[in-house]
Amino acid sequence: MLVLEIDDIKKIIEKIGFKDYFLQLIDTIEKDYKSWDDFDKMPRVATHVDGGVIELMPISNKSQYSFKYVNGHPKNPNTSNKLTVMATGQLSLVETGEPLMFCEMTLLTALRTAATSALAAKYLAKKESKILALIGNGAQSEFQYLAFSYLFDLEEIRYFDVDSKAMEKMALNLKEYKVKFTPCPDAKTCVKGADIITTCTADKRYQTILTKDMIKKDVFINALGGDCPGKTELSSDLVRDSNVVVEFLEQSKIEGEIQHLGDDYICPELHEILTKKVSLNVANDGTIIFDSVGFALQDYSVLSLTYKLAKELDIGSHLNLIPQMKDVKDLYSLLKE
Amino acid sequence: MLVLEIDDIKKIIEKIGFKDYFLQLIDTIEKDYKSWDDFDKMPRVATHVDGGVIELMPISNKSQYSFKYVNGHPKNPNTSNKLTVMATGQLSLVETGEPLMFCEMTLLTALRTAATSALAAKYLAKKESKILALIGNGAQSEFQYLAFSYLFDLEEIRYFDVDSKAMEKMALNLKEYKVKFTPCPDAKTCVKGADIITTCTADKRYQTILTKDMIKKDVFINALGGDCPGKTELSSDLVRDSNVVVEFLEQSKIEGEIQHLGDDYICPELHEILTKKVSLNVANDGTIIFDSVGFALQDYSVLSLTYKLAKELDIGSHLNLIPQMKDVKDLYSLLKE
Repeated sequence: MLVLEIDDIKKIIEKIGFKDYFLQLIDTIEKDYKSWDDFDKMPRVATHVDGGVIELMPISNKSQYSFKYVNGHPKNPNTSNKLTVMATGQLSLVETGEPLMFCEMTLLTALRTAATSALAAKYLAKKESKILALIGNGAQSEFQYLAFSYLFDLEEIRYFDVDSKAMEKMALNLKEYKVKFTPCPDAKTCVKGADIITTCTADKRYQTILTKDMIKKDVFINALGGDCPGKTELSSDLVRDSNVVVEFLEQSKIEGEIQHLGDDYICPELHEILTKKVSLNVANDGTIIFDSVGFALQDYSVLSLTYKLAKELDIGSHLNLIPQMKDVKDLYSLLKE
Repeated sequence: MLVLEIDDIKKIIEKIGFKDYFLQLIDTIEKDYKSWDDFDKMPRVATHVDGGVIELMPISNKSQYSFKYVNGHPKNPNTSNKLTVMATGQLSLVETGEPLMFCEMTLLTALRTAATSALAAKYLAKKESKILALIGNGAQSEFQYLAFSYLFDLEEIRYFDVDSKAMEKMALNLKEYKVKFTPCPDAKTCVKGADIITTCTADKRYQTILTKDMIKKDVFINALGGDCPGKTELSSDLVRDSNVVVEFLEQSKIEGEIQHLGDDYICPELHEILTKKVSLNVANDGTIIFDSVGFALQDYSVLSLTYKLAKELDIGSHLNLIPQMKDVKDLYSLLKE
């Protein structure tokens, strides 16, 4: 069974280049979302614990089955100097059930989340979007900028975080990129004039990062932080009065910004936008919220792409985690010699 | 993050000894089942695919969260020379969500299943049980004999499998043990005079391995093979007219032998037997069926015990699967140097 550690992911990205990796990932997610009906889907399986949530996110089509283990513990950075989100994942063959790869997914989650944001913006945001506002400058923020920068000619990043050190860290990490950096004192200032807004805060309780009066009429809002019952970032009138697109309605009703809007609420799912069953763009339809909670299909895409690349590039370790035997009914023989 | 391969499990068992490992495992499962109310429980999450099933089995208490990935593909041995059941698992800290260990679980599943069988028999079977019947002599069978042999003075194993090679393999693997081996031409002959019967066949469809007329009045039947909707081993009148004990009623109604008996059917759960809330023994109450489908709590027990032993014995590999960082908001820095 192939095992990919953090350094292996780094090696893959170094060999291919950040931009090409991201573009391949965006393509893979797009292709998989366009095959929406081929996947066996369910809302993720959440266990709510003191101070956080622990989730399993399975999905499969006819050929492969993937799952991700992921936690969300917003207090980790302050109480234990651990990441808020840590993840691992596995890819298996459906035909035999045999696991193919176990993989770090903390990095892969950041990568696939940013790739999905950019993919949604490719269809939903104005083509000529130039100003990106980033609210929440933690672990996810640099990946957001990079993914958008590959699809849009960004001229300015406006950014804000309640933690000023996080703001400095992000600006420092991205200083090589030729774009105007505008640190902002609050969310309201941050979103002024923005074409694309990403909200990516981590608190596990209802918050109101954005209200309706802060938003002009033609913005693409990429709302990432609301991804749990009781964890949202937008005022409910902003959500109600905007066009909303979700990944998977059944899961988003439980976890997304739309959890405020009742069980009967419906809105388009991302795959309907990508296959053009539903046509929607900020330029014609006004402000659009991509109420993104993170769906297992994105994990499937990043795992299957990464597995393919790891094999092509011969990266990773082969560990003896699944018995390979002459007589498969003789499991006991493993303990005998 | 600690990773345990198959050889690491073998090393742990070699250092401790098979008998002591099994006794510790039986103790651990017993202790955990006695703390039943401390666990956050759900039926496993099953994805039914062509030719099999792929499952995730999560569970947690206040301190640790575990899950197992496991498949069941009955045709694997014939079509691809793969095991019917392959498994991996992970143990995490609840407080931070941090994964502690990723582990092979094909062997551990066989071990914990046999340990649970023996634990149930310790309470439910006659103390003086001497004759064990094993129907189905595949990957699980030797573990069954060993676990029972540590708690009962077995004098005879009667055994039967539709595959005569599996029968030969099992007898050969166990030849060092001083017990009478009686190969049988069919299930009916196999169960004659038995005090304990384990049925452990793998076909994914309704089967009738045991019928009521084959069973005397005071037998402990350990029914392992029925563990999926549509996959059972006992005739429904045998189940209806016997005392039945299950692991977790909510899951067993979906997967166990009792799936024939309707939604209103109730019977004791194993934890009620162990805590003596319900008193039941073959000697007083006649034939008892332990309708065992395999529950996540057993995986929790074997993972937490194995993790403890691996640390004590310094066995396993430490892989860089979870970022350890000075600034946990600076995930991007992992890709920079």
